[in-house]
Amino acid sequence: MSYKLYYWDGLQGRGEFVRLALEEAGAAYVDVSRGPETGGLGTGAMLDMLHSKTIPYAPFAPPFLEDGELIISHVANILMYLAPKLGLAPQQEASRFIANGLQLSITDIVSEVHDTHHPIAASDYYENQKDAAKARSADFIGERMPKFMGYFESVLTRNPHGDRYIIGSTLTYVDLSLFQLIEGLRYAFPRATKHFSKRYPALTALHDMVRMRPNIARYLASERRIPFNQSGIFRHYPELDQDVR
Amino acid sequence: MSYKLYYWDGLQGRGEFVRLALEEAGAAYVDVSRGPETGGLGTGAMLDMLHSKTIPYAPFAPPFLEDGELIISHVANILMYLAPKLGLAPQQEASRFIANGLQLSITDIVSEVHDTHHPIAASDYYENQKDAAKARSADFIGERMPKFMGYFESVLTRNPHGDRYIIGSTLTYVDLSLFQLIEGLRYAFPRATKHFSKRYPALTALHDMVRMRPNIARYLASERRIPFNQSGIFRHYPELDQDVR
Repeated sequence: MSYKLYYWDGLQGRGEFVRLALEEAGAAYVDVSRGPETGGLGTGAMLDMLHSKTIPYAPFAPPFLEDGELIISHVANILMYLAPKLGLAPQQEASRFIANGLQLSITDIVSEVHDTHHPIAASDYYENQKDAAKARSADFIGERMPKFMGYFESVLTRNPHGDRYIIGSTLTYVDLSLFQLIEGLRYAFPRATKHFSKRYPALTALHDMVRMRPNIARYLASERRIPFNQSGIFRHYPELDQDVR
Repeated sequence: MSYKLYYWDGLQGRGEFVRLALEEAGAAYVDVSRGPETGGLGTGAMLDMLHSKTIPYAPFAPPFLEDGELIISHVANILMYLAPKLGLAPQQEASRFIANGLQLSITDIVSEVHDTHHPIAASDYYENQKDAAKARSADFIGERMPKFMGYFESVLTRNPHGDRYIIGSTLTYVDLSLFQLIEGLRYAFPRATKHFSKRYPALTALHDMVRMRPNIARYLASERRIPFNQSGIFRHYPELDQDVR
């Protein structure tokens, strides 16, 4: 049976971290919001789940995954659940908590990226919080992004199994998420990320390795990969970008 | 052997969600930063771990837990790891992903609480971002807090096993975290939370039930429970609080 992935239509957003894992594994899945309403799919079907007054443990927000009876919410949680089934989990059981810890640090930086353009109110227009967005973006570019990226680079280069993958000697979902993080940061902040390949050579090599994997390359070239745009988490507002020392 | 919990000294902060689980279970643990430097403990011991250039998978930030060879970071991840050992996990295996999903929604609101007083830069003084903090707090109180709390109340009242616990018919770590969330919100926003018990009666009953559990009551009365203060996640700045409709 297919997995059902629920996420907003028309953007990559947080759903993309789950999509990349499903695509790499060649798993069968339905992207519910993008399906036809006549087939019981579409954004309405997602909203029905979110606003249900009867489903126990309906999720707080997208993305969420339906696998038979189970509904699982939050990117890191979905990936931790899926990874063993998709062959994308670390081989040692204990390493799964290492993977989840790394993934939650990715969750954190992704949330901070969101707040660069929405530092005051998620539900209000960007234009109404532009000044705060500029201040927050300056801090993100100057302090937070280097802290996170330096951390991931350092973890990668210290992997006792070599720096091809972030954990162990096989591809995991965390590698796929790091690829997406770098893609997103480069899109949102082309000036601030200009020196990424020099500063974070191991992460850059990991990014390029993921991009070349056959299933990922095929997915990126497909219509299923919606380009980055101004509705997603990673948005390019030139006034929020800046050169770094 | 004792668990070692690493978190900043002098505040409850994110570490408190882990402490409550350890305390409820009566587990042996060392609160590393609060220990004496002469015993190899203290904040320095924590910073050594964080800044280590040799430990694989050193954490990005506190809290983290050391259990033998394993170092586990992020509150939700630590709790997911500990819960089965402490007897605080849901009884069904699949429900552990439900628990983790709920815990990650708690992580999200806790992060938003942090940003009410630090909406621009985590490393800068509150006083330097007070205007943005007021705007963000107004949105938090008016939009986000009711959305999260309404969600948790609705999940609790829909529990097929009754509304005593958030999952199933036994206490889990998520119940303890909900208690802490309510405690913190009441401390930070006494005006905005004045009607909590009327609006969220099931959550309030859950909060009171947790507070009365013998091990929790003993912990709360002990010196190990540091009072809320202006260094933690939940801070009381009267200018950020307001009455709600």
